[in-house]
Amino acid sequence: MAAQSMDQLVSLCKRRGFVFLGSEIYGGLQGTYDYGPLGVELKNNLRQAWWRSNVYERDDVEGLDASILGHQLIYKYSGHANTFSDLMVDCRQCKSRWRADHVVGGKCERCGSKDLTEPRPFNMMFKTQIGPVVTDDESSLSYLRPETAQGIFVNFKNVCDSLSPQLPFGIAQVGKAFRNEITPRNFIFRVREFEQMEIEFFVEPGKDGFWFDYWVNERVSWWVKQGLSKENLKCFEQPKNELAHYSKATVDILYKFPHGFEELEGVANRTDFDLGSHSKAQKELNIQAKVVENKDSLAKLAVLKLQTNEWIVPFVIEPSAGLDRGILAILNEAYHEETLENGSKRIVLKFKPHLAPIKVAVIPLARNNEELMSKAKQLRKDIQKLGIGRIVFEATGNIGKSYRRNDEVGTPICITVDFDTLTEGSDLKDTVTIRDRDTMKQIRMPIAKLADYLREYFASP
Amino acid sequence: MAAQSMDQLVSLCKRRGFVFLGSEIYGGLQGTYDYGPLGVELKNNLRQAWWRSNVYERDDVEGLDASILGHQLIYKYSGHANTFSDLMVDCRQCKSRWRADHVVGGKCERCGSKDLTEPRPFNMMFKTQIGPVVTDDESSLSYLRPETAQGIFVNFKNVCDSLSPQLPFGIAQVGKAFRNEITPRNFIFRVREFEQMEIEFFVEPGKDGFWFDYWVNERVSWWVKQGLSKENLKCFEQPKNELAHYSKATVDILYKFPHGFEELEGVANRTDFDLGSHSKAQKELNIQAKVVENKDSLAKLAVLKLQTNEWIVPFVIEPSAGLDRGILAILNEAYHEETLENGSKRIVLKFKPHLAPIKVAVIPLARNNEELMSKAKQLRKDIQKLGIGRIVFEATGNIGKSYRRNDEVGTPICITVDFDTLTEGSDLKDTVTIRDRDTMKQIRMPIAKLADYLREYFASP
Repeated sequence: MAAQSMDQLVSLCKRRGFVFLGSEIYGGLQGTYDYGPLGVELKNNLRQAWWRSNVYERDDVEGLDASILGHQLIYKYSGHANTFSDLMVDCRQCKSRWRADHVVGGKCERCGSKDLTEPRPFNMMFKTQIGPVVTDDESSLSYLRPETAQGIFVNFKNVCDSLSPQLPFGIAQVGKAFRNEITPRNFIFRVREFEQMEIEFFVEPGKDGFWFDYWVNERVSWWVKQGLSKENLKCFEQPKNELAHYSKATVDILYKFPHGFEELEGVANRTDFDLGSHSKAQKELNIQAKVVENKDSLAKLAVLKLQTNEWIVPFVIEPSAGLDRGILAILNEAYHEETLENGSKRIVLKFKPHLAPIKVAVIPLARNNEELMSKAKQLRKDIQKLGIGRIVFEATGNIGKSYRRNDEVGTPICITVDFDTLTEGSDLKDTVTIRDRDTMKQIRMPIAKLADYLREYFASP
Repeated sequence: MAAQSMDQLVSLCKRRGFVFLGSEIYGGLQGTYDYGPLGVELKNNLRQAWWRSNVYERDDVEGLDASILGHQLIYKYSGHANTFSDLMVDCRQCKSRWRADHVVGGKCERCGSKDLTEPRPFNMMFKTQIGPVVTDDESSLSYLRPETAQGIFVNFKNVCDSLSPQLPFGIAQVGKAFRNEITPRNFIFRVREFEQMEIEFFVEPGKDGFWFDYWVNERVSWWVKQGLSKENLKCFEQPKNELAHYSKATVDILYKFPHGFEELEGVANRTDFDLGSHSKAQKELNIQAKVVENKDSLAKLAVLKLQTNEWIVPFVIEPSAGLDRGILAILNEAYHEETLENGSKRIVLKFKPHLAPIKVAVIPLARNNEELMSKAKQLRKDIQKLGIGRIVFEATGNIGKSYRRNDEVGTPICITVDFDTLTEGSDLKDTVTIRDRDTMKQIRMPIAKLADYLREYFASP
């Protein structure tokens, strides 16, 4: 199952503190969202799962965290300053503005008028001025990065100099990027401020075809491990004649969002365009892509091939995923409404354990008993120390209500401390009840065995 | 010991991939820095240690992750749009601009001229335009947040509605903030793009004094746990007559950076100024701070006191730390140059284990032996699964060189797989050598005992 509509998700997200509209108390700032107490945990967990798989568990990928503000020359030579545009139309009737390809049937979405201007390009980069300049000054112009990728390319030599990696190797980065979307829409799907998880994987020219296929498979299977079902994922290979001029091949990994199949991640073979564009001494480098002459770069972005003593500009395979889109997909997939035996309904988020915002809720059966309360509090502290994620102590005094609340935010395990836990001489002394979110089954387990059980349960997939 | 100069740190950071100047290949973008492969790990580790202590290990703090782009009304009512300025002077001789209080002796730092303009205010917020506007338009003006705090205040009601917390409670956030510093300086100390770790801790008026003292102590002792020595930390209480008008008390936690004692974190009693400023229905709320009339807010930022059925606006205690400044302090403190017995020197970064970018390096004694290589690779994989952080496999074929390289980046433990590890029938079969970074002592340990040993060793402090 999955959510039936975007509205279900938006409503749950607001009610339970996953995602709020940005600047909401001032009417909202369109295309920006704030992650609440549970959303930030889910997002951190997905980000960390990606980092673990792509940096920690590999020998050939290094991490990076470049700044959001970038020198204008980066975006001159990357091509963004000139070409990173969407086509925009104005409605002459109501003065609203629309992305041309979003205007269905040639009608303004707001007032229905067909009196629209001709489409014209609108650059999607956010501009700002850097340094103590009081008036507009082109030399102080800077951009908020529209993708994290450029920060990787311009640091290529720095990373090579400090670590001497051998091809093939990748540089991974997660971070905010900004695009001034003409018409943000579909909740956290199309927004103006978002987080990307990108790898630029540098390979020898000629081996790019192999690595391209490798990364498409790798990324699809990673999303499946995060809980997305295969039937909701689809690979779309962009037709050759629609590719960007520097791209040899691009596969969009599409997910069936509540509003339809749309891009979750893209994998592109960007050839030697990026390093070639940002490199000095381009003429010595036999660059295959068509690049603009670079008169400003201070670094040669190439590697010396030891066998032939020849400088080569690596090709780049780029798996580029949207973290916020990932969150939306995972929320959608996890969302279940179930009718229980007694006829009542429950909403349950069936997250994979490693992604759940709260791993374990420790619940004393009654809150008016001091011994029970202190036993449960201590247990919570001990479990927190395992380093498996966020553990909460919850004393509502109503166990059924606690289970329902935790189902709705996807807590995989509730541990109940009851009077048997405390009773000297009882077989059940120092045992607790473990209740599973998905099956709702309960088992009894000695506290002494919890650490191993939980470590195993929450191990990364 | 610690670093003798900033230059030592800058040089190590560049050489070993901790921190690079932003946009370096285009001459650099002043006041921005990129974290390299090791820097990003160190930063992630410090950020996570803060989150663990302040969110996971407490019952009374929730996390949040608000957007960087904020509605202009947020910064109107917070006061930033009007008053978040530094005084600036121009040098009439060489046209350079300086922060007035940085001009020592009334002379231009670049050309030495004393012909400077009168100081005038320069607003430090970065501006941008949101939405498809082609010309300048005040209604589309937006700011990059100059602090993460405001994102917490404007979400106060959202968090209360979704979690119903009782006073006292806090909301914690880590994220990028931006200030258009007139003169960025001192490496990653004073920059234009940086990361903050902030808690807004909401308390009942009257209990603010207690909680202010509590947080000052709490934060100092947290920094000590991260490895800063007490003698390098100092608390400076701002004189009452120099406090911002909304602040009842502020303590700066100063650290002895290479360039002198400067602020690492500030703890402020901000009274009810922030919630009061952003609230609707201010007149019903008996706000104590002097606030501007808010005609735009849609939310009442107050809590209902159950005992008296009265709405109160909580006071806020704010511990606000700089993550990049924390990194600089920790690098400084960890830096040691030692002369070894044989007269050679080593540089060693004595990070606390939980902060070290690389936790363990697994090293096969020789790289031309396939069995040794595959045993070491498997061991690295097994240790990686423990979830204690980043583990690397290193086969330079020169064990002394490997130790030196790992000392210099602060890897606490090197594990060597040698021929004894493989020898059937030997007492040392399936044991490895564990070498400690700080003492350089080596012990032999069965592989079977490694998991427990390492989990204990890298447990958070």
